Amino acid sequence: MFKVFDPRQLGHAPALELHNGAFVPHVDLPSRAQVIVDRVGPLAPAEDFGLEPIARAHTPDYLAFLESAHRLWQEAGRPGDAIGYTWPVVGRRPLNLNRIDARIGRYSYDAGTPITAGTWETVYWGAQTALTALQPLLDGRERTAFALCRPPGHHAGADYMGGYCYLNSAAIAARAARDAGRRRVAILDVDYHHGNGTQDIFYEDADVFFASIHGDPSTEYPFYWGHADERGAGAGEGANLNLPLPRGTTLSPYMAAVDTALDAIAAFGAELLVVSYGADTYEGDPISHFKIATPEYGAIAARIASLGLPTLVVMEGGYAVDALADNVESFLSGFA
Amino acid sequence: MFKVFDPRQLGHAPALELHNGAFVPHVDLPSRAQVIVDRVGPLAPAEDFGLEPIARAHTPDYLAFLESAHRLWQEAGRPGDAIGYTWPVVGRRPLNLNRIDARIGRYSYDAGTPITAGTWETVYWGAQTALTALQPLLDGRERTAFALCRPPGHHAGADYMGGYCYLNSAAIAARAARDAGRRRVAILDVDYHHGNGTQDIFYEDADVFFASIHGDPSTEYPFYWGHADERGAGAGEGANLNLPLPRGTTLSPYMAAVDTALDAIAAFGAELLVVSYGADTYEGDPISHFKIATPEYGAIAARIASLGLPTLVVMEGGYAVDALADNVESFLSGFA
Repeated sequence: MFKVFDPRQLGHAPALELHNGAFVPHVDLPSRAQVIVDRVGPLAPAEDFGLEPIARAHTPDYLAFLESAHRLWQEAGRPGDAIGYTWPVVGRRPLNLNRIDARIGRYSYDAGTPITAGTWETVYWGAQTALTALQPLLDGRERTAFALCRPPGHHAGADYMGGYCYLNSAAIAARAARDAGRRRVAILDVDYHHGNGTQDIFYEDADVFFASIHGDPSTEYPFYWGHADERGAGAGEGANLNLPLPRGTTLSPYMAAVDTALDAIAAFGAELLVVSYGADTYEGDPISHFKIATPEYGAIAARIASLGLPTLVVMEGGYAVDALADNVESFLSGFA
Repeated sequence: MFKVFDPRQLGHAPALELHNGAFVPHVDLPSRAQVIVDRVGPLAPAEDFGLEPIARAHTPDYLAFLESAHRLWQEAGRPGDAIGYTWPVVGRRPLNLNRIDARIGRYSYDAGTPITAGTWETVYWGAQTALTALQPLLDGRERTAFALCRPPGHHAGADYMGGYCYLNSAAIAARAARDAGRRRVAILDVDYHHGNGTQDIFYEDADVFFASIHGDPSTEYPFYWGHADERGAGAGEGANLNLPLPRGTTLSPYMAAVDTALDAIAAFGAELLVVSYGADTYEGDPISHFKIATPEYGAIAARIASLGLPTLVVMEGGYAVDALADNVESFLSGFA
């Protein structure tokens, strides 16, 4: 398995987030990546594919905002991380807005995704990490690859950040695979949280199938996406599969959902698979509520590997830092 | 002038809000109302008109949410005030959501509007205060009335809270005036911030004219509403007038905007006027940026009074508590 990590992803270290009524220390620590590097290394550094492949999954105005936001925050005389406090309600139209707080709200949907001085460099190299890991799958040198991306990306849409996510590395890689000639690509999202950004990016796309297994959004973040009746629209109708599961889900029902997703991906005729892997389905995760044990990740991955597709694993969430290296190692072992 | 205040409005005392990157003490203090009572009293208590007139400006699901939210917050094991941390982005559909955090996001648009144990009682009696003050205008016993409402209301829409506002007392009173037979009603909003909730409630309504003079929303809260090209829609097209002004605006250009608004209200043929009065246009306001001096409020009010309409003044914002009683007293003196 080809493994990639770029240490420039360690620069993003947000301080606080608003969560459940309190302004609390942020859980997306740079150490989340470091403990994985220490266990599953050595990992190749990222090559630089530039902004063009990123701009195929994100809008130009959003990328310009993201690149400049922390500088504008500092120019507004603000200390610390840039974080929003107001968001346009459903139905608001796009507007030219000249205040950083207004622009943050325009391009985000929560108070958990601060922009730090290091955010842009970190997420840029996260996207490059995914693109670098994809290359040997495209030229046939490898069957599986692991992109150690941090922060996660699957909550970021074409023009918004949220859920600790800024650039959607899995979506960027999936679109790059399409652009490289793979006619049909599938994304399987096995993070605890629904991959709303990925869903939105491909919601009307007939060529990229998105399947997600996640905590039921009627009680779990991101709440407003991930419901079972969201099945794609327009040309993409039927190419979106949400499999929400209740809090407390254990391996057996989880694996049944994996089988359902894999059957749909096989029926779709995918030529390449991107897996958004979150270790926050782990029974000890501090902010999530499934009951997957460390050794069970290998079994889940082996089931996914049985599809026989070239597979890119992109790291998403997982906040039990002490168990994170064990969980990732177990998951990757399933592809051996 | 008939003046109304209900002391049950003092129960709402939010602790903190997320603003400009920090979780800071909330500026909507109960003392805002108390200092005004002490200066312009005595004030009559509110009568109880029940929920029905409130439900003519707000949706049933929003009212049910607002009434129950703090109890649900406590049932979720949360201390302190209920405050959101995620909001549905533009385009999200309505959903049945079973978690309090999800419901808060569904019915709000910022992290500055916490729901406390006393919020529902406070805002219920704020609405009753406005309805009580309206009555002698409807039966001809008075030409002017003052409803001392707190918290403000003009940022609250039919189905959302925000900007320290929960129930829109000015909108509730305007609709009650319509329902009592006034064919055409106008609302003039002279708070520093655009009255987005009021605008939204009447945006397609041909019988209620909304005019607002406020800080330019390209740099001032609430950012996503209040732009000059928002002129109403459907049957209400042309019955919405936004007059945004830049930071630093002084009396002379402010009064020119007042004249523009009054001309439009006169041309509309309003039979009754509701004034949303915010003292946060004051030169010393801690969160706003106009340059109106205390004695100038009397001149502004006298200009409004020159319309000769039965006029209900509803208290909105104003956060320089030390100067608040002076500013309100000056404004009300213009109607003498």
